[in-house]
Amino acid sequence: MIEAINLDARLALIADHWHPRTVAHVNDFAVKLVKVQGEFVWHTHEEEDEMFFVVHGELTIHLRDGDVVLRPGEMFVVPKGVEHKPSAAEETSLVLLEKLTADQTGGVETELRAADQDWI
Amino acid sequence: MIEAINLDARLALIADHWHPRTVAHVNDFAVKLVKVQGEFVWHTHEEEDEMFFVVHGELTIHLRDGDVVLRPGEMFVVPKGVEHKPSAAEETSLVLLEKLTADQTGGVETELRAADQDWI
Repeated sequence: MIEAINLDARLALIADHWHPRTVAHVNDFAVKLVKVQGEFVWHTHEEEDEMFFVVHGELTIHLRDGDVVLRPGEMFVVPKGVEHKPSAAEETSLVLLEKLTADQTGGVETELRAADQDWI
Repeated sequence: MIEAINLDARLALIADHWHPRTVAHVNDFAVKLVKVQGEFVWHTHEEEDEMFFVVHGELTIHLRDGDVVLRPGEMFVVPKGVEHKPSAAEETSLVLLEKLTADQTGGVETELRAADQDWI
């Protein structure tokens, strides 16, 4: 039997926040899992759309035109060029989908930047 | 408030099988929802990886090297060039991720081919 990728089993391996781990490549896109809590930084990906899907918790994506609140089973795509700031009051588990070329903070310098690009 | 994409709310709009509906584009990829039941056809996407994620039900992806069984919260990527046949004993709801260029049946002629490429 070939093994499926079980999101909860993979998420159980993640203990830190704002550090996405890749679970699969789909052509030139990466599917990543990440746990987040607190506020990220405002940033923009000039060339890459970014999809957020909530597995557990609640994510607010702040946009300059308003906020999007995602609960489990909900997704949103931030279009390229659109400034955004994710935040989560409680620990929240996400699936991210973004191009391999995407930089986590869109070039913004912050201590929240993940130290590496791990698989899990 | 900008609206999230709620998978269950969108799936409730789908009444047929093997007819994927697009809910979002992420650069040159489409995120699609589909309900399936029964057996699809063996086919291959020569250039496109394809991601399957089960929301409800149970999907078996038959591969020439073995089967992958996906339950809710599980995903699998069929690499480009790998022949596969999805099947589901009971009605099963999926998220698909594939390039806009991907053909549903990899060119195989079948009455299971969806008549159009709708959004929902």
